[in-house]
Amino acid sequence: MEVFIEPIGRLMNEFSKLPGVGKKTAQRYAYRIINMPEEEARAFAAAIVGVKEKVRFCKICGNYTEDEVCAICSTRDKSVICVVKEPKDVVAFEKLHEFKGVYHVLHGVIDPMNGVSPNDIRIKELLARIAEGGVKEVIMATNPDVEGDATALYIARLIKPLGVTVTRLAHGIPVGSELEYTDEVTLSRALLERKQM
Amino acid sequence: MEVFIEPIGRLMNEFSKLPGVGKKTAQRYAYRIINMPEEEARAFAAAIVGVKEKVRFCKICGNYTEDEVCAICSTRDKSVICVVKEPKDVVAFEKLHEFKGVYHVLHGVIDPMNGVSPNDIRIKELLARIAEGGVKEVIMATNPDVEGDATALYIARLIKPLGVTVTRLAHGIPVGSELEYTDEVTLSRALLERKQM
Repeated sequence: MEVFIEPIGRLMNEFSKLPGVGKKTAQRYAYRIINMPEEEARAFAAAIVGVKEKVRFCKICGNYTEDEVCAICSTRDKSVICVVKEPKDVVAFEKLHEFKGVYHVLHGVIDPMNGVSPNDIRIKELLARIAEGGVKEVIMATNPDVEGDATALYIARLIKPLGVTVTRLAHGIPVGSELEYTDEVTLSRALLERKQM
Repeated sequence: MEVFIEPIGRLMNEFSKLPGVGKKTAQRYAYRIINMPEEEARAFAAAIVGVKEKVRFCKICGNYTEDEVCAICSTRDKSVICVVKEPKDVVAFEKLHEFKGVYHVLHGVIDPMNGVSPNDIRIKELLARIAEGGVKEVIMATNPDVEGDATALYIARLIKPLGVTVTRLAHGIPVGSELEYTDEVTLSRALLERKQM
């Protein structure tokens, strides 16, 4: 005899597809759904279908949007483009409420080991935006790992000849952290890139 | 400008209703859904609606079932009834694959502080099952806390006069744990209920 009846087992299986959700957590989530009022559960289900139906990619920057062009591309300063790997990186910057420019989402980074070549990410689209003119600075904000650094370097080499300033996010010790617990690579980078006081 | 567009914000809000899910986790879940193939997302939504439509309570034991009477009540030894607080406690026992009897889900415990009286939980239904005859033992498996103990005691007093053996799960040190880290109440209980070797 199965421990869970079919509809519960099926829902647990669906919840297990979410990142970091194991069997136990999936069970807790499924039981929460069972105890919800029916209309609340239906609203939940509708929200899931809703994102698939309504969310698409901005034809300029590649970020998620409900319209053809996203709210950021249609209202903000187009002279500064911040290049990121994924839409969630845009969220990280937007939470700062400091950056006034626009974004360009690559939807990946160059990663030959996993078969991702420069043609597989939105580099052509970025070059096309720059070719249209008016871009003064491109900030490379890919992750500070091997693939992110390589991608930033690759794109920088393509853009520099076009007369556009290319910058990279600063590396160093996170604010509020302790030297003792900073990893060696970060610490050596912070030392290398030290600034005059 | 909102950091998240409406459909994504709405889905994050729904995920936040799940136990232990904060804003960050809700965001990760929502992004996973966006990246799912549409049919997979639809299956997820259907599974949520599915549990609300198909899952109901067994008219005998009160556990979740798709039918009028659950698979456990219709096939197993009815002479031993294990009384638990919630359907998820049935799952905990069923995972052992050891208990061969049936269950009775109270759907709560007596808790006067929160306005839960004996009439609010399924005690009448338990007495009715016993009155039908054939029950030899009732195992009180409510949680080992104040409300769980009080409920077990209350029910035991009602059942004993009917000539049925009433037992309670053993308390003591969890298997594999260390004395040093066992809480005082558990340790004192383990001492009190020590057994001859």
